[in-house]
Amino acid sequence: MRPLFVVLEGPDASGKSTQLELLERALNARGIAVVSTREPGGTALGERLREILLARSSTMHPLTELLLMVADRHEHVEEVIRPALERGSWVLCSRYVLSSMAYQGVARGLGLERVQALNTMATGGLRPDFTFLLDLPPEVAFDRTRERDRFEGEGLAFYARVREAYVRLLDTQSGGHIVDGTLPPDLLCQRILAHLPLP
Amino acid sequence: MRPLFVVLEGPDASGKSTQLELLERALNARGIAVVSTREPGGTALGERLREILLARSSTMHPLTELLLMVADRHEHVEEVIRPALERGSWVLCSRYVLSSMAYQGVARGLGLERVQALNTMATGGLRPDFTFLLDLPPEVAFDRTRERDRFEGEGLAFYARVREAYVRLLDTQSGGHIVDGTLPPDLLCQRILAHLPLP
Repeated sequence: MRPLFVVLEGPDASGKSTQLELLERALNARGIAVVSTREPGGTALGERLREILLARSSTMHPLTELLLMVADRHEHVEEVIRPALERGSWVLCSRYVLSSMAYQGVARGLGLERVQALNTMATGGLRPDFTFLLDLPPEVAFDRTRERDRFEGEGLAFYARVREAYVRLLDTQSGGHIVDGTLPPDLLCQRILAHLPLP
Repeated sequence: MRPLFVVLEGPDASGKSTQLELLERALNARGIAVVSTREPGGTALGERLREILLARSSTMHPLTELLLMVADRHEHVEEVIRPALERGSWVLCSRYVLSSMAYQGVARGLGLERVQALNTMATGGLRPDFTFLLDLPPEVAFDRTRERDRFEGEGLAFYARVREAYVRLLDTQSGGHIVDGTLPPDLLCQRILAHLPLP
């Protein structure tokens, strides 16, 4: 069975990191090698870019933000994701192209065409096999965050725009599924696993 | 007279920073307000990106490098260059689009089409009125650098590719002139001033 590339999407505090851990454990228990990673970040360079992108002290124009996200993604695809898949590992990744579409394309207003063109360039067309949207009502996502980063600091209306975009754009991703981010973590993990073709 | 946007190009150690200072002083003496700036850098965000881009400890793919340069440029154009020109100041800038063409497009092998498309997006089409290439034989440029950054560490063959590209591509820039980077700084400054329409 060829290794799968599985992406988790959703607002901050939707439980993506927790699900990465639970899924990795569950897949390992079935004898599947897994690389868990995240964007922005996932490489040494990417973690430096992540600091810049998330710091509340950073200010930048929306297109600057998009270009940095896409730079991070290119490095991540070339250094981590594609090599892992080629070695036969599954890849579980928190955030990918759909985040750029929802955040920079829609919520920041840059438009989807530019976002998609840049992402196609940066990923070389590498698409996930499955994308799970950990959906949360905007108020719940907003209430769950305490120390807000630059994105979380945008407020409830921004969360609502991101959610609407996520739900609307999920269909553009092959293997896209909405799952309920308010479920207890173990139950949510079972729901996700139920969609995956497991050996 | 409308304010001019003047770019200095050339390899590291070709004297761009020194010429920025001399030109600023000479223009100020004629009553011209000047903003001197540089790429990568020129904004708070850009200086952080500059550190990442130049550090010898950084490793990155050529397209990552290009995307970071272009992110830096967008922020710089929007925050520094365009506002200064709109206020009526001249802008003197060390490196601009031609650097991306010579370094990432040719020397790193990414091709000019992608470099130009990304730069048009990032600059909104803002082009310099004059571009001066401070030309140096590759061996001289190479010998002049002591503590080499990530680009300077590429070696003599890289310097030679960059120079060849610079000379070949200068014609694509309106107001492009080659000047001799081996001249004494004051004389070089006079040569550059002689090309500018001064009040």
